[in-house]
Amino acid sequence: MPKPSLRGLDVPASPIRKLAPLALAARQRGTKVIALNIGQPDLPTPEEAFDALRHIDRKVLEYSPSDGLRSLRDKMVQYYDRFHMNVEADDIIVTTGGSEAVMLAFMATLNPGDEVIIPEPAYANYITFAKMAGAVIRPVVARIENGFALPPIEEFEKLITPKTRAILICNPNNPTGYVYTREELEALRDIVVRHDLYLFSDEVYREFCYTEEPYVSAMHLKGAEENVVVIDSVSKRYNECGIRVGSMVTKNKELKSIVMKFCQARLSPPLLGQIVAEASIDAPKEYLEGVYDEYISRRDILVNGLSSIPGVVCPLPKGAFYCVVGLPLEDAEDFCKWCLTDFSLDGHTVFMAPAAGFYTTPGAGRNEVRIAYVLEKEELERAVEVLRAALEAYKNRK
Amino acid sequence: MPKPSLRGLDVPASPIRKLAPLALAARQRGTKVIALNIGQPDLPTPEEAFDALRHIDRKVLEYSPSDGLRSLRDKMVQYYDRFHMNVEADDIIVTTGGSEAVMLAFMATLNPGDEVIIPEPAYANYITFAKMAGAVIRPVVARIENGFALPPIEEFEKLITPKTRAILICNPNNPTGYVYTREELEALRDIVVRHDLYLFSDEVYREFCYTEEPYVSAMHLKGAEENVVVIDSVSKRYNECGIRVGSMVTKNKELKSIVMKFCQARLSPPLLGQIVAEASIDAPKEYLEGVYDEYISRRDILVNGLSSIPGVVCPLPKGAFYCVVGLPLEDAEDFCKWCLTDFSLDGHTVFMAPAAGFYTTPGAGRNEVRIAYVLEKEELERAVEVLRAALEAYKNRK
Repeated sequence: MPKPSLRGLDVPASPIRKLAPLALAARQRGTKVIALNIGQPDLPTPEEAFDALRHIDRKVLEYSPSDGLRSLRDKMVQYYDRFHMNVEADDIIVTTGGSEAVMLAFMATLNPGDEVIIPEPAYANYITFAKMAGAVIRPVVARIENGFALPPIEEFEKLITPKTRAILICNPNNPTGYVYTREELEALRDIVVRHDLYLFSDEVYREFCYTEEPYVSAMHLKGAEENVVVIDSVSKRYNECGIRVGSMVTKNKELKSIVMKFCQARLSPPLLGQIVAEASIDAPKEYLEGVYDEYISRRDILVNGLSSIPGVVCPLPKGAFYCVVGLPLEDAEDFCKWCLTDFSLDGHTVFMAPAAGFYTTPGAGRNEVRIAYVLEKEELERAVEVLRAALEAYKNRK
Repeated sequence: MPKPSLRGLDVPASPIRKLAPLALAARQRGTKVIALNIGQPDLPTPEEAFDALRHIDRKVLEYSPSDGLRSLRDKMVQYYDRFHMNVEADDIIVTTGGSEAVMLAFMATLNPGDEVIIPEPAYANYITFAKMAGAVIRPVVARIENGFALPPIEEFEKLITPKTRAILICNPNNPTGYVYTREELEALRDIVVRHDLYLFSDEVYREFCYTEEPYVSAMHLKGAEENVVVIDSVSKRYNECGIRVGSMVTKNKELKSIVMKFCQARLSPPLLGQIVAEASIDAPKEYLEGVYDEYISRRDILVNGLSSIPGVVCPLPKGAFYCVVGLPLEDAEDFCKWCLTDFSLDGHTVFMAPAAGFYTTPGAGRNEVRIAYVLEKEELERAVEVLRAALEAYKNRK
């Protein structure tokens, strides 16, 4: 029998899906499982998107250009202008979701054995994309007691070796909800310029920034134009994760020309998704404001609720729609499993992602969980009550 | 300034696009350029596909499951049954086009330095996907004088080393149009079973088989169930290349579970494309028959025309919608360029892909071009006349 690759064997299971079989079994027993594990927004996709689909006037659903429809890239330029990001259509490559943008950025820049420094906890799929490129993630641990702020820049500096090729941040952060300050970003800018590194900035949650200060993009960093590669996606912004449309944005022409070779090999990003994305950018500002207001009120309900549970630590997320929560116990994975196998409150339980899967540092985050607040407020209120009771019952279990 | 990866620098430019700037310049000079270089079908997508789009009744365009919509996989099972392929829904992973299926098959099976044997000329993007995995393509050259039949199996045997992990075929073949016989496939079956190799079979042109004999899929090969991985796509079948929906089909559960880890990292294949693909499988058989008849008559016009040009060699393609054509000259790339820069007949010229880009063997295919017959018959007739005149003029050029 033929053997799979070592890389394939080595890819960790997704931390947000690892417990899915237990959740399924709980549902089959009739328990109502509140899914806090996954960032699948429940809010509606803009009407403009559906209108565009209904009015498609084509005879053939043909390949689009490998870098995406020009009309979409032009529309994206208008979108970036709202954030005062100096982006031209030629700086944009449309990708199959933000996921492909990360994968191709890694493929185009990281040799086998090369290192990319990532503050963690971090989006777990970066690990898989790094393994695809044969690259190694060097983590810098952000601490819950500091609200998951950027670790001191010296910790990055210490990790730099001749193999270091890039630093990757996610801003606003998945899974912590932290939003990097201008000072933090400028410190990163200085270090990548000094060491000739790429700065990959995953900004897919750009609109969901609750600090009342203007969003600072890596594209705003003066003097790092050749270093910065922005990863983007319309998925979360317009509640259209399924269309698989993202982008890679860079002023680095050499890098862009190399990424384009990979893009030509996969032919084109999804045409229908691009049509939907282009229409979505025209959604009225009331649409995005409505989404924003909803997430803020969900966040407040969730965080206020969690903070009222004895021993639970939940730094206020400044952006995105996740939080990493410290629990008063040793092994959050065991607790998450137990919630699905041994606990319910009035027929309800919670499905949370153990946060250890968002760290590559052994032992880090063992008492933490990631919670996504993409559920209605009543559900979140109920989730808090279920969690409160579960923690109590878990402590007192035989 | 940060540096790109060696892998990125090493990826060859796409042979079908390499001359695109010259074609653009010719068009800008007012020349009508007949594009024979690219396999972008011009035939209409089924009405069923557009109907499905118009009737989407969802509020959120959410992620689909990472292995694709269950309803689509069930529909695909019905489709495979038409070819007497024993496929269950659980054997199918829906991918972002056949391209992603190839890339993930390589990632899941090939270690850096591992070898995959491919008869060539071959679909050029396999090279890029192999480079992404760090793997090496070992070519076996199929000869135009044998009509591009499978080279003797001893030539495969000779290339097998401890690093060999797989043999990849494309059947019907892009770029040659060759369709492998049952005997050829069984010889491949025996060798992959004997050496514990994977057999990757790219069958995206399965319907376009003009031999009047039933199509033989790698899934039909008894005893190789753990070895065979079918790469598939609805792109060419239903003239919907832009939707980016393909599949990987295998009975090998271990391999499937590993591919699924990569699939979970990229979250999901395109939802809208999946809705379209599912509806397209319901297109009436008259739709596929119409497409089939159209390609056969195009093929006949093209091949009869080409064969009437002195010195031109064009084996009759038994499938797909490409042919590789031997020209009476030394350097087909130079000729293809010259057609775009220095020649026109009544304001027309032809844009062909030099076939050398479909070989990795140095010097192979230098006098060959690949032609795609995805144009209307009148255009193909005109293309033949342009090519006839161009060859004459090229021979007599100063």
